[in-house]
Amino acid sequence: MDSILDSVKFDDRGLVSAIAQDISSGDVLMLAYMNRDTLKETLEKNVMVYFSRSRQKRWFKGETSGHVQKVREVYIDCDGDALLFKVEQTGAACHENYFSCFFRQHKENSWKIIRTKIEE
Amino acid sequence: MDSILDSVKFDDRGLVSAIAQDISSGDVLMLAYMNRDTLKETLEKNVMVYFSRSRQKRWFKGETSGHVQKVREVYIDCDGDALLFKVEQTGAACHENYFSCFFRQHKENSWKIIRTKIEE
Repeated sequence: MDSILDSVKFDDRGLVSAIAQDISSGDVLMLAYMNRDTLKETLEKNVMVYFSRSRQKRWFKGETSGHVQKVREVYIDCDGDALLFKVEQTGAACHENYFSCFFRQHKENSWKIIRTKIEE
Repeated sequence: MDSILDSVKFDDRGLVSAIAQDISSGDVLMLAYMNRDTLKETLEKNVMVYFSRSRQKRWFKGETSGHVQKVREVYIDCDGDALLFKVEQTGAACHENYFSCFFRQHKENSWKIIRTKIEE
């Protein structure tokens, strides 16, 4: 595990970018961050565990909402400073209850909501 | 254009994360950054123009390699601090000549190359 973690280039805050992509639809769900500990936990448990920059603490995705992201495949980029996780998304990835956080599209010089919220 | 740009939350370095995704295959190609000027240029010209953090300058993707990324769709996330661009990728997105920068997958406790280089 250490050799895997050592190939990752964490930034000056100790974080690496983590893109979550839904493995079925190919939808990019969200972009967040992990530190070494939460990346290790993610790889060990096969569920996404981020590090919240705003709260400065471990963030087990879905801990309260149940919207867990089960990890299926993990990729690293050429520079080693970004990770791509193909996941099985339970419910909504977005805290606003959209499947993807990227639910607004640039159209006619504004951001239009192009997805519908998931009903619980 | 200003209202669009004003909705984007640039970080303390003046940058926003930009994910490029191939619109045909759904492959996530790369993660890089834009400042306000290069985002404006990207939206005006419909080709990806990043801001290189290492070189601290404008980076017109494909300027020397010809591996231009034509912008087809643009999305913003819930927090406004990440952008997703669906693009038409010409040639390789990666400077190592792989279609995607995420060409290494986590397998059996190492990073295995799972793509082949694009022949020019």
